[in-house]
Amino acid sequence: MRTARVFRLSMAHPGDLSELEDLIERGTIKAADVAAIIGKTEGNGGVNDFTRGYFTQTLMALLSKHLGRPATELIREIPCVLSGGTEGVMSPHYSVFCVSEGAAKRHPSALAIGTAFSAPVPAEEVGRPAHVESVAATVRAAILDAGIERPEDVHFVQVKCPCVTVARAAAAIAAGKTPLTNDPNKSMAFARAAGAFGVAMGLSEIGPDDFTDASLLADFSIQSPRASISSGVEVESNEVVVLGNSPGWAGDLRIAHRPMADALDIGAVVDVLADLSIAASPQVSAADAGRIASVLVKCEPDRRGRIRGHRHTMLDDTDINAQRHIRGAVAGLVAGVIGDGRIFVSGGAEHQGPDGGGLIAVIASQEEAG
Amino acid sequence: MRTARVFRLSMAHPGDLSELEDLIERGTIKAADVAAIIGKTEGNGGVNDFTRGYFTQTLMALLSKHLGRPATELIREIPCVLSGGTEGVMSPHYSVFCVSEGAAKRHPSALAIGTAFSAPVPAEEVGRPAHVESVAATVRAAILDAGIERPEDVHFVQVKCPCVTVARAAAAIAAGKTPLTNDPNKSMAFARAAGAFGVAMGLSEIGPDDFTDASLLADFSIQSPRASISSGVEVESNEVVVLGNSPGWAGDLRIAHRPMADALDIGAVVDVLADLSIAASPQVSAADAGRIASVLVKCEPDRRGRIRGHRHTMLDDTDINAQRHIRGAVAGLVAGVIGDGRIFVSGGAEHQGPDGGGLIAVIASQEEAG
Amino acid sequence: MRTARVFRLSMAHPGDLSELEDLIERGTIKAADVAAIIGKTEGNGGVNDFTRGYFTQTLMALLSKHLGRPATELIREIPCVLSGGTEGVMSPHYSVFCVSEGAAKRHPSALAIGTAFSAPVPAEEVGRPAHVESVAATVRAAILDAGIERPEDVHFVQVKCPCVTVARAAAAIAAGKTPLTNDPNKSMAFARAAGAFGVAMGLSEIGPDDFTDASLLADFSIQSPRASISSGVEVESNEVVVLGNSPGWAGDLRIAHRPMADALDIGAVVDVLADLSIAASPQVSAADAGRIASVLVKCEPDRRGRIRGHRHTMLDDTDINAQRHIRGAVAGLVAGVIGDGRIFVSGGAEHQGPDGGGLIAVIASQEEAG
Amino acid sequence: MRTARVFRLSMAHPGDLSELEDLIERGTIKAADVAAIIGKTEGNGGVNDFTRGYFTQTLMALLSKHLGRPATELIREIPCVLSGGTEGVMSPHYSVFCVSEGAAKRHPSALAIGTAFSAPVPAEEVGRPAHVESVAATVRAAILDAGIERPEDVHFVQVKCPCVTVARAAAAIAAGKTPLTNDPNKSMAFARAAGAFGVAMGLSEIGPDDFTDASLLADFSIQSPRASISSGVEVESNEVVVLGNSPGWAGDLRIAHRPMADALDIGAVVDVLADLSIAASPQVSAADAGRIASVLVKCEPDRRGRIRGHRHTMLDDTDINAQRHIRGAVAGLVAGVIGDGRIFVSGGAEHQGPDGGGLIAVIASQEEAG
Repeated sequence: MRTARVFRLSMAHPGDLSELEDLIERGTIKAADVAAIIGKTEGNGGVNDFTRGYFTQTLMALLSKHLGRPATELIREIPCVLSGGTEGVMSPHYSVFCVSEGAAKRHPSALAIGTAFSAPVPAEEVGRPAHVESVAATVRAAILDAGIERPEDVHFVQVKCPCVTVARAAAAIAAGKTPLTNDPNKSMAFARAAGAFGVAMGLSEIGPDDFTDASLLADFSIQSPRASISSGVEVESNEVVVLGNSPGWAGDLRIAHRPMADALDIGAVVDVLADLSIAASPQVSAADAGRIASVLVKCEPDRRGRIRGHRHTMLDDTDINAQRHIRGAVAGLVAGVIGDGRIFVSGGAEHQGPDGGGLIAVIASQEEAG
Repeated sequence: MRTARVFRLSMAHPGDLSELEDLIERGTIKAADVAAIIGKTEGNGGVNDFTRGYFTQTLMALLSKHLGRPATELIREIPCVLSGGTEGVMSPHYSVFCVSEGAAKRHPSALAIGTAFSAPVPAEEVGRPAHVESVAATVRAAILDAGIERPEDVHFVQVKCPCVTVARAAAAIAAGKTPLTNDPNKSMAFARAAGAFGVAMGLSEIGPDDFTDASLLADFSIQSPRASISSGVEVESNEVVVLGNSPGWAGDLRIAHRPMADALDIGAVVDVLADLSIAASPQVSAADAGRIASVLVKCEPDRRGRIRGHRHTMLDDTDINAQRHIRGAVAGLVAGVIGDGRIFVSGGAEHQGPDGGGLIAVIASQEEAG
Repeated sequence: MRTARVFRLSMAHPGDLSELEDLIERGTIKAADVAAIIGKTEGNGGVNDFTRGYFTQTLMALLSKHLGRPATELIREIPCVLSGGTEGVMSPHYSVFCVSEGAAKRHPSALAIGTAFSAPVPAEEVGRPAHVESVAATVRAAILDAGIERPEDVHFVQVKCPCVTVARAAAAIAAGKTPLTNDPNKSMAFARAAGAFGVAMGLSEIGPDDFTDASLLADFSIQSPRASISSGVEVESNEVVVLGNSPGWAGDLRIAHRPMADALDIGAVVDVLADLSIAASPQVSAADAGRIASVLVKCEPDRRGRIRGHRHTMLDDTDINAQRHIRGAVAGLVAGVIGDGRIFVSGGAEHQGPDGGGLIAVIASQEEAG
Repeated sequence: MRTARVFRLSMAHPGDLSELEDLIERGTIKAADVAAIIGKTEGNGGVNDFTRGYFTQTLMALLSKHLGRPATELIREIPCVLSGGTEGVMSPHYSVFCVSEGAAKRHPSALAIGTAFSAPVPAEEVGRPAHVESVAATVRAAILDAGIERPEDVHFVQVKCPCVTVARAAAAIAAGKTPLTNDPNKSMAFARAAGAFGVAMGLSEIGPDDFTDASLLADFSIQSPRASISSGVEVESNEVVVLGNSPGWAGDLRIAHRPMADALDIGAVVDVLADLSIAASPQVSAADAGRIASVLVKCEPDRRGRIRGHRHTMLDDTDINAQRHIRGAVAGLVAGVIGDGRIFVSGGAEHQGPDGGGLIAVIASQEEAG
């Protein structure tokens, strides 16, 4: 029987994996058990954020050394999902998701992890229904990998999917294909939309007839509160991490999620904690905070320019990117309830939870603090 | 008997005072009753933030037109305290504090407002004990103006005080004087420290023997959780607004305050609301939110680089100013509890509340929502 | 006979018009002679740059006071064109263009100035051929106003034209019209393109059959090296300032212009100075620098991501806006040749000079330094 | 007889050393010949610029693979000096300095390279006379390594020196020592000053009696137009690269340098090229541009707030760091003269060339373009 463990580790800078190295060297973590990484690095979170690449290079070199396998192989097997930007009270950290076999404490249901990689997505398919289907199939494969039988037991699906670069677009055009756009930023947004639709379809929240090409980035009533999507030039295929609960897994962790209606939705934060039997009145106690293994949030600046009727200025700020604004604000709220800045708050939440809002998922121990 | 009223108004841009103009034209506000303005404009909050000057110019021209008096006089009588920076979920707005005589509903105690201006502070005194004493005397004058008899009934003291510019420093040196520094940014920080010490002294929290020159910006155990200080090149004297409760005032508003221990201190937010009989579980209800007239917060990025043991990245960010980071984060938390982005969150909280934290004050109606 | 004079004045901040006020009070400038203002303010140059509004409000209040006419009228008669952003070595300044009658030194040809305002541009026409035609007609009116007979004597056409705001777009849609876009940033770019096409048409560089709707922001072979366009939400009609040379004007100023092939085109800078008999070897002498009255530059980050074959990083920088990057770089080059940071360098040069480059115009005295 | 070669290579991102790898694999460069690297990466150039660490990690891994030696050793032997920030027209690139033995074309004098590393600098000595002396000794060692006999043949001395971190300062204090400051940013500035003084002393431009502790960051008349200093938390000892000309070296490269009086000093750029028999009238011809192997510039925003009498806004900009401003401006000027954006322009030029200015060094082939 498999057991999922999550280690939330801090870093001194984006190339600092010393805490993981130490745990591997002390035998607490077996390098072969590392199934996925989800982390926040202290970059700007934009196209020119190289903290993600720096961390990934360091991670893969470390695992390569311990596993005796080339980093170029590992990078195609172990999803390493990083969100740049630790605005405000966020603290740079990464969660190492490990899967091991053997004896462990049993609960009726426990955290289950599955991963899957798709075939490369051709440039002309990025951000289109074919991309949606590719993500959906990969999500189903990851659910199968996790051994989760009921779709409602899936609580968080992290997807990292490719976008079109200028070079890839040019190659596609030369081959007689027509990419949706050759603007990398637009392509990233469409890819995130396709990823969210793909998760919704993979979880049977929507069917193939529920949308058309024109729905992506347009019909925001289509959304999944369990989809967390990032897109980047550095990947060519869809990488998926599914997190849920399953009676087939041992260990004492459990996951829950809630949609966030808007950037002020403190109720969603309190509710998801309550789902895990953790009280926040108004803040989680130190003892209960110790039970929390990971906090995962998606959010975005409301595209209509208002929050609960009042104008916000995030979208028109030439100095600070809107995603940096919203991450800092929502992290301030969530960290205040949790009492800890080691939270994953990521922007770009198109179709990932309600429009103008997002979602929150929390992983915590089922064993109440003594 | 005096009555204090507070109008929280929105603006479309920093030169937009149309909501105030409308209220004056409709007779809701008498221009002569305007005692002070405290607002948030959508600048960067730094030295090169001209949204404050733009707003002030527009305000004084408006009042000048309605009062038939020159703007140059009004600016020395009506404190206009603006904090630039509406990061994240904050909404640009301004609170107009009005004082009128005549019949109004009576409560045992109600919001009282007092203002005072000091003589110009010589450049060589800025940031030094003489500056502290000047602020303390001005605070006492403002308390007298407010008619608040018990020091514990003062809940928020806003001070806007001068700093040394390169030109002022040069003039002082030419006159044989020695300014503390000729760096405007350092001077602003020392001036804020002097302002905070001055408030503490004016409120008898500390005495003249409790500190020396060397205590400013060094001994952070000296602080006042009721002091909110801004410093700028545009003023030459200390401008003070005192807010408290007094049995000598009519009206249904009341004010309370709490220190914030750190940037995650959601408890302080909930407690200050409870002081005003407003529940936040976890968010203030829409009905109760309608009772809130003004939310005033000071905060700062913890200078030790950590929040509750975890590294934050605000102080080392070359792209986003640390004050912009912390304002966005704390505003995210406070707005989440209140359910409204029209809150005044200001950085630069040296000696204003606990080190690494700050303070929160809220003005609300005493009449519970029906 | 008319004489054009240009006063290049410095400001301490965007609300500081004291140098102009001083010149008016001393009688050097008659307020009634002020025909147009072109200036650089120290904002960020983006949507949330309020330094332009602050300067304009201060200017119009000043002229209103001296002319005894309401600012609301003056703002529709005197073009005040401001470009935000004094990156790098640029110094905040403004050029006051004055037109007076009476005796003045005669040269065969001298600087001529004309201005014109169009009717308001309906939201559904912004960025479309009807907008192009409106600009073209306004340019022709301004040329007529300047009394310039030969099109080749026009050297610089500054246009400030409206864009669609969310509110204007909504109103148009409600009235059954279809705006090109309701994204203000896109609308501004299309409006600048329409302005450039309008200048090209007004100068007979292109005819109405030389382009279609699809040419704007797409066919960059269509461009005018004499067009300098800004677009903003604050105007509703096209405002045009035409600068050229004419035998019908007195005074000793003259203007010349050159296209800039790319951001490294120092040759264009040297050539335009040579057109005015000013040597730069490599820098303009102090004596000749005193002859220069105004330097006007348009530029943009090459949209193909490369300059002379080498990758630049301006377009992918999440921290600094690309227009701020290019203004700083091109200003560094031009100021280095001129030896003076008081130059007007503006971004957003779509169709204004060669793609990836821009243009430079210089106004200087015809009388060689003694 | 030794020959120095310089390869100027481009990168697609800070972790992209593929051009160097290719040259090594094709045998053009022997990994063992790599003596030093000087490059520009596309970060922000500040404390939180991790592009330098990412590049260095990638470089050392590459050389380690080819040399069969651990990266931890190589990093203490091969100076890798990176300046973050490719503002404006700068193109990310790195110059690989190689030294090989054997037959090569002879000129009377040719580019000579020397490197040296000092012992670690104790925290309490950073930014003080002992640090100056350590740098001076290391500079002398690097000159010896280069075999340059006459001090006037040294044209550029790159120093990378340590600064005090909070942790190092705490350790020093615990050991009873007194660091100059525990603020990393101040420490970096003092360390750069000590580096510049050390170069001046190592080149016998100043003697030990020409300055005191109080001279650093205060007496800007003490400066060396051949000193280029960077400081960072990542090094513990002083790393020095000396570049000059020597009759003892073969090859066709030669170096020259000039001080820059201010940010507009285009004359210095033209003069240093003339020193290498390269004309710029106004721009270097394509043929001559091909002779240029490396362009190295130091600059800084004038601390007095004015350039040639006109106010600049770099020092008061809360949105863009002053060093980013000045790098972009000076790079615009230098790239315009050279006609190429692959130039190394670095800020933080305290005591490195004239106050408010800096210096420029150029390496070029002595063989004139055919």
